Amino acid sequence: MNALIALGKRAKQAARVLACQTTEKKDAALAEIAQALRAQLPAILRENARDLAAAAENGMAVSMQDRLRLDEPRVQEIAAAVEQVIALPDPIGQVIGGGNRPNGLKIEKVRTPLGVVGMIYEARPNVTVDAACLCLKSSNVCILRGGKEAIHSNTELVRIMREALEAQGLPAYCILLVEDTTRASAADLMTLNGYVDVLIPRGGKGLIQSVVQNATVPVIETGAGNCHIYVDESADLEMAVCVCDNAKTSRPSVCNAVETVLVHRAVAAQFLPKLAQKLAEHQVELRGCARTLALLPQAIPATEEDYATEYDDYILALRVVDSLEEAIEHIQTYSTGHSEAILTNDFANAQAFTTRLDSAAVYVNASTRFTDGGEFGFGAEIGISTQKLHTRGPMGLNELCSCKYIVTGNGQIR
Amino acid sequence: MNALIALGKRAKQAARVLACQTTEKKDAALAEIAQALRAQLPAILRENARDLAAAAENGMAVSMQDRLRLDEPRVQEIAAAVEQVIALPDPIGQVIGGGNRPNGLKIEKVRTPLGVVGMIYEARPNVTVDAACLCLKSSNVCILRGGKEAIHSNTELVRIMREALEAQGLPAYCILLVEDTTRASAADLMTLNGYVDVLIPRGGKGLIQSVVQNATVPVIETGAGNCHIYVDESADLEMAVCVCDNAKTSRPSVCNAVETVLVHRAVAAQFLPKLAQKLAEHQVELRGCARTLALLPQAIPATEEDYATEYDDYILALRVVDSLEEAIEHIQTYSTGHSEAILTNDFANAQAFTTRLDSAAVYVNASTRFTDGGEFGFGAEIGISTQKLHTRGPMGLNELCSCKYIVTGNGQIR
Repeated sequence: MNALIALGKRAKQAARVLACQTTEKKDAALAEIAQALRAQLPAILRENARDLAAAAENGMAVSMQDRLRLDEPRVQEIAAAVEQVIALPDPIGQVIGGGNRPNGLKIEKVRTPLGVVGMIYEARPNVTVDAACLCLKSSNVCILRGGKEAIHSNTELVRIMREALEAQGLPAYCILLVEDTTRASAADLMTLNGYVDVLIPRGGKGLIQSVVQNATVPVIETGAGNCHIYVDESADLEMAVCVCDNAKTSRPSVCNAVETVLVHRAVAAQFLPKLAQKLAEHQVELRGCARTLALLPQAIPATEEDYATEYDDYILALRVVDSLEEAIEHIQTYSTGHSEAILTNDFANAQAFTTRLDSAAVYVNASTRFTDGGEFGFGAEIGISTQKLHTRGPMGLNELCSCKYIVTGNGQIR
Repeated sequence: MNALIALGKRAKQAARVLACQTTEKKDAALAEIAQALRAQLPAILRENARDLAAAAENGMAVSMQDRLRLDEPRVQEIAAAVEQVIALPDPIGQVIGGGNRPNGLKIEKVRTPLGVVGMIYEARPNVTVDAACLCLKSSNVCILRGGKEAIHSNTELVRIMREALEAQGLPAYCILLVEDTTRASAADLMTLNGYVDVLIPRGGKGLIQSVVQNATVPVIETGAGNCHIYVDESADLEMAVCVCDNAKTSRPSVCNAVETVLVHRAVAAQFLPKLAQKLAEHQVELRGCARTLALLPQAIPATEEDYATEYDDYILALRVVDSLEEAIEHIQTYSTGHSEAILTNDFANAQAFTTRLDSAAVYVNASTRFTDGGEFGFGAEIGISTQKLHTRGPMGLNELCSCKYIVTGNGQIR
């Protein structure tokens, strides 16, 4: 814990310096970071190779090894993402409310940094640069605690970024890495009250639940996405096939991919075979209720657990429902509150679906895959909140901010 | 825990019903509540008398007994506060952002209820009605867990409010009371994940820290207020005496009262005796640094601990500083991030103070006592956030809300 407290103190000091920097200064540091990442490609690849060698030796799954791997195009992508952050508006200092009070006090509500943002994440080294740069632009100091699998890559990336900060006259301590990757260091970060203003976990369900259960600092719960599409009686079925296919197969591993499609019984016989035919192109495994099985002999029976599962894979649960009401009840029962869509041409049904369902994003006639900071126009995101406190949905620069009230007067008393 | 889970399930069901109610319906229920509180005054006073009798028997401090006491004027005040909530704008459904995306998707960001709001609080029964009615107006179900000292009063107030809800066709379960006032029930409420969307503690430091340390549900930390006023070299000293006196003595027990006054050395000799003379009218005890003691023989020496203490009493810490810089450093060291004021006529100093200090409210030439939902124009407040996640400062109806994105298209895929 002592090591983390020392880190926390440095973070608080750096946060005070960073809070007062101009946009120009922060953007210059971001540009320096992008350039340095490109310039120091060989060093990055060398350290990444050490992580990859250890991963292979420890028998890491091939798909996980792929997430860990950096190569020239990926580093170029990371650097380009940093440059995109430069182009985004600086949220700090934006006046987001206020006015004059009857007694003559003037109140301004102003965006401020959160302060110190802790990130606990797993094997993807690109998160290290993404998170650090979004924090930098929003004047937040970050304390990064990545997985042990990526420790050599992360250490190198942080070294490069910190050199770039110093070259631009900013404190290196604006970007902090927890070098100890044991469970103990994660536990310490979760209870670093007084130093960490918010902790954002990014990774699998186990990681996120561990943070929610054990943290005493404020947390934003991210990522769990058991998303649904309801194909209403009045849906354009050709569009529905296209949207369901896109939501399932364009990138099954992400949290905004659809996991269950609900179909109104009046169109099930017409729709389900078409959907199954389309999904067969990607060998999607179908798991359905009894009425689905009657229409799709290739499907296997879905259990209660299937409906509660975020597959993140080429697997789709199906259920035929009698009504919009039944679809809403199903979603209320199983949803994680991420993204749900109705495909319909019925105005009242669209209205009921979007009003009654309480998820971060509710769609009419579009794919759930749009729940994403880039697609929403935020430019970039640090995660997708599935809790209701602070914010919901994609978290961009504005969502990395707090606020304060500046109140000016001429001697008012109460 | 089972009793709390049962309560949590009812709360979730009620939250779905409440989320879809019109403003008219909610306002009618609030009017019914106000009327019922007035009509059932004798029953309220009878149950409150039981709490007061137990309090006297248990030797509760007289000041605490006073906070517990209800009488006709106080019940009238409580009912009037309910009617003020009717007059406030309904935050639910307000469109707070959005626009069209290049691909034709239309995104609306809409205010939604948080869902289920847990409140853990101490002996003041008025909080029961205040919290329930602010939650009702913002379509949140509340789970109230008051102190055992007020259990008879709270049970009666909740019974009356629930009858009023039912009379207006709303589920009684929109207002829930945890009748078990043991520590175990508080602990259960703190870990009611999946049912409680946010938990707001209101009370002393011990209560708030216990919630922060033990809750696994999202928490808003409230109320700690070690507030400062810095009297700059250029301050209007007459105004400064008036503002410091107001900030200390108008209501010393509340969180926005000032606890330490810092004075620039150039004006200390002129200012401190005047301030001491004014504060003597309220027998305020003064604790000061060595330079203060040299000017005010009646003051006693201040320790490091004094500067860190929220007295909530007729006690004021004083310190003479060499510069604005030293004042800012002192505040950064000891502040709880609630409210700080500078009294100055120097523009650059005012700017530096408000920019560099990171508290919920920073004032120029006004009393810290204005950090209050009513004074800020929010109409009412459920507490004052001193954390940076979700919101800072007074929490009114808007701050009792989350948001969701409603996205409409015509078949967009990604």
